Amino acid sequence: MTAHEGLDPAQSGLGDMDIEAFRRHGHAVIDWIADYLGTIDDRPVLSPLAPGEVRDALPATPPVEPEPFRRLMADLDRVILPGITHWNHPSFHAYFAITGAGPGILAETLTAALNVNGMLWRTSPSATELEQVVGDWLRQLLGMAPAWSGLLTEGASTSTLLALAAARERTDLDVRQRGLAGRPDLPPLRVYTSEQAHSSVEKAAIALGLGRDGVRTIAVDDRYRLRPDALAAAIEEDVRFGFRPVAIVATVGTTATTSVDPLQAMADVRDRAVTELGHPIWLHVDGAYGAALAICEEHRWVLDGIERADSLVVNPHKWLFTPIDCSVLLLRDTQALSTAFSLVPDYLATDDGEVTDLMDLTVQLGRRFRALKLWMTLRYFGAEGLRRRLREHVRQAARVAAWVERHPALELVVRPEMSTVVFRLRADDAEVAAAADRAADTAADTAADAAADRAAALAAADERSRRVLRWLDEDGRILLSGTVLDGRHVLRLALGNLRTTDDHLERACAAIDEAVAAVPPR
Amino acid sequence: MTAHEGLDPAQSGLGDMDIEAFRRHGHAVIDWIADYLGTIDDRPVLSPLAPGEVRDALPATPPVEPEPFRRLMADLDRVILPGITHWNHPSFHAYFAITGAGPGILAETLTAALNVNGMLWRTSPSATELEQVVGDWLRQLLGMAPAWSGLLTEGASTSTLLALAAARERTDLDVRQRGLAGRPDLPPLRVYTSEQAHSSVEKAAIALGLGRDGVRTIAVDDRYRLRPDALAAAIEEDVRFGFRPVAIVATVGTTATTSVDPLQAMADVRDRAVTELGHPIWLHVDGAYGAALAICEEHRWVLDGIERADSLVVNPHKWLFTPIDCSVLLLRDTQALSTAFSLVPDYLATDDGEVTDLMDLTVQLGRRFRALKLWMTLRYFGAEGLRRRLREHVRQAARVAAWVERHPALELVVRPEMSTVVFRLRADDAEVAAAADRAADTAADTAADAAADRAAALAAADERSRRVLRWLDEDGRILLSGTVLDGRHVLRLALGNLRTTDDHLERACAAIDEAVAAVPPR
Repeated sequence: MTAHEGLDPAQSGLGDMDIEAFRRHGHAVIDWIADYLGTIDDRPVLSPLAPGEVRDALPATPPVEPEPFRRLMADLDRVILPGITHWNHPSFHAYFAITGAGPGILAETLTAALNVNGMLWRTSPSATELEQVVGDWLRQLLGMAPAWSGLLTEGASTSTLLALAAARERTDLDVRQRGLAGRPDLPPLRVYTSEQAHSSVEKAAIALGLGRDGVRTIAVDDRYRLRPDALAAAIEEDVRFGFRPVAIVATVGTTATTSVDPLQAMADVRDRAVTELGHPIWLHVDGAYGAALAICEEHRWVLDGIERADSLVVNPHKWLFTPIDCSVLLLRDTQALSTAFSLVPDYLATDDGEVTDLMDLTVQLGRRFRALKLWMTLRYFGAEGLRRRLREHVRQAARVAAWVERHPALELVVRPEMSTVVFRLRADDAEVAAAADRAADTAADTAADAAADRAAALAAADERSRRVLRWLDEDGRILLSGTVLDGRHVLRLALGNLRTTDDHLERACAAIDEAVAAVPPR
Repeated sequence: MTAHEGLDPAQSGLGDMDIEAFRRHGHAVIDWIADYLGTIDDRPVLSPLAPGEVRDALPATPPVEPEPFRRLMADLDRVILPGITHWNHPSFHAYFAITGAGPGILAETLTAALNVNGMLWRTSPSATELEQVVGDWLRQLLGMAPAWSGLLTEGASTSTLLALAAARERTDLDVRQRGLAGRPDLPPLRVYTSEQAHSSVEKAAIALGLGRDGVRTIAVDDRYRLRPDALAAAIEEDVRFGFRPVAIVATVGTTATTSVDPLQAMADVRDRAVTELGHPIWLHVDGAYGAALAICEEHRWVLDGIERADSLVVNPHKWLFTPIDCSVLLLRDTQALSTAFSLVPDYLATDDGEVTDLMDLTVQLGRRFRALKLWMTLRYFGAEGLRRRLREHVRQAARVAAWVERHPALELVVRPEMSTVVFRLRADDAEVAAAADRAADTAADTAADAAADRAAALAAADERSRRVLRWLDEDGRILLSGTVLDGRHVLRLALGNLRTTDDHLERACAAIDEAVAAVPPR
């Protein structure tokens, strides 16, 4: 093949891909995706590659000359696809199960072609106003008051960072101007969140200069929900020792178990503390995954108390079928964000008058036109269509949970209220019971031995649980993830992909069954 | 029309858009884009809409029932497109001119369809390894040493925030754990950057708890480059007053004039300060726009000294034809980032061994597969193809600059070294000269009058400059942007779109000519 064989007309020149080449390659890409999604079921969910295999299959040096587009597509199949863990697969049940659905995929294509940067209103009124409109639509779907308004960001970590930056500014300690370091006038600042909260809270605290010590984690109850009494006690103790409470972060749908923190009771604690201390404490709600469920009337309880909060993050790229990345930060008062971050250099000054320039609300200046995909997704499915689909995932989770309950080797950790099933392997019952008996009935030194036996039995169950997970990884039919709860290893099976049917639930149960049988207790 | 007319088969059910509907709509979207890009030249560059027009054209409440996809596409034409400022337009010369080129648009489609989250290596080895590979390819293209490695982020503001967070951690003040507030042991921290630096440096300082006071801006020379002597003096003074220098930010291609800070001399100042103070000072380089030019051997001087820096941000979505968003943060030591941000909760723990989990390096956990579009863009154009295109934009800028120099009413502010031409309206020469004469030749009180006259003449020229810009906005043929330099309003004409030809340069010169004629001096 000569250097220019298969190249597009403009490719060796100075311009962009020419229009007819774009049309031809574009149709090929659409067909590739249709075929991919149509056959995705046949692929192993988790990439089977070993570390370095993708890298080693690619040239170590950058290409010097232009390459034909079809060679790029061939390498997509040959090199990239084997290294993909298929998040859009109906048997992807790890972390939170998501869908990059059709309307959003096509909207992303349009976003890339328009290639607008919505930093200022004038740099695309549609980008700013559509972002405001879809934020408001989502607010209405979640049953929230008109005072709230929305903002799109890259992800929940970024949304939470922005919310906590607003909380920090709300302290009236003039952090924007004077910072936090080298100020003997400042007390150490604290953010409160449950021990089940997402790591993004701690990362935001690191970034914002509060440090890991600036996050105090609060104990949870037997359903993994933050304990308001423990929160009140922690704040009281901290204030006594000179800390300044800045924010409380509640979670609606924790990562491990989808538990829902009690917003009303937390807001009560907050209100009492504010009255006593005489300064504001921000209440942020991390509903990245779980808040979406509030679009269904019968599940709206998950946001009970939200009107008393200051901010809420919900990620349409989690459970509203929008391709990654799309996070919505809803705030009761966006002024708090612009107070922290508005900076208008001369090269961005306008005389457009009373418009919203979204750059004023964020650290990041440049803004992708993310609103387009959320708008197309909401319209394509419609509110009722979204509700039907969320209810289906809740139903699927309940069905899997019922199967777990019937399974002799498995036990539910919590009854699922959303679309994630958390369960674990029973420790060998006879062994544990025998250990417990010995502990109860015998002398102290024997009891200690028995307790050690019991711990060993539980550790063996946990080790088996990890091996089950590895067996499933290698099997490839389904992908689960695990975590640790109360010191025990647990398995998580998440629902949320729009292509997941009852057949896929059968597949999942069969695979878990086989795994448990293939990995006997030691 | 009945409710279900025009709906796709699966749309009213529980699933995703069905495969054949995706194929059909996808082909329509590709054709829409081909037609859009093929006729983009005929559109006004700046959206002519008034504030609120897009919002008012959309329903105030979210759609209840699913809508046919073609109705979404009809609204794209009817509502969204009039509110678009066309960044992909060959006559978009505002801010920095960019291109969302064909290969990147198609790659974004694939990214959305794969919908992977590359937070962990295992959640798609291709996402992590391709990101490492394209980062390394870019490093090589920029002529940098193998020790550097890259990381993709949302934008330069985010990249700079991460770099400065690493710098803050490098202080060994244990900011990650202990934060900055309420620590009498901490001095106030300082970051140094030129008064021409991007606002993202100040925003990062706000976010990181250094505050605006934590950024000391340094004077520039007559070509708007940071003055190393002023930097050295500022550090010396700050240290005397108890500040702790943490980082220096150089700019390669400032926003206003594309000036290039002297990296070597700044590194010299840094090294001397480090020797004296005995603690590290991070050198970050903001090359978001300008660093790309270093892929051309004859322009590599723009990064002269980069080996002495600690981090560099370059945005392929600026001058490497990749759709928004794609920023690359290159670091000599990524360990500094993971020291700041690595947090592995139980639900993300793996036993994958020695792999890189990119979530460890950033605040944001979830990660889009941005590497795919950069990979396809680099391969489609090839290194030589990219160089040809950058050189073309430099040539175009020189051509416009020569035209400005010949124009009786205009004057160049600086000779362009990259692809942006900065110029201004001459103040009415006779008036200014007369004012200067009076100032030189007469008694003090008359001289004061004359100085006031001169200032009035310059103010009149600036006001005219702003009116010229508004005239061009309304005319719609081209889009420029303005800024303020040395107290004078200046105009910026940026090149960088792959569809911009010499005909478009003629169009730009003609439009400016007409604008200047239509907006006479007052």
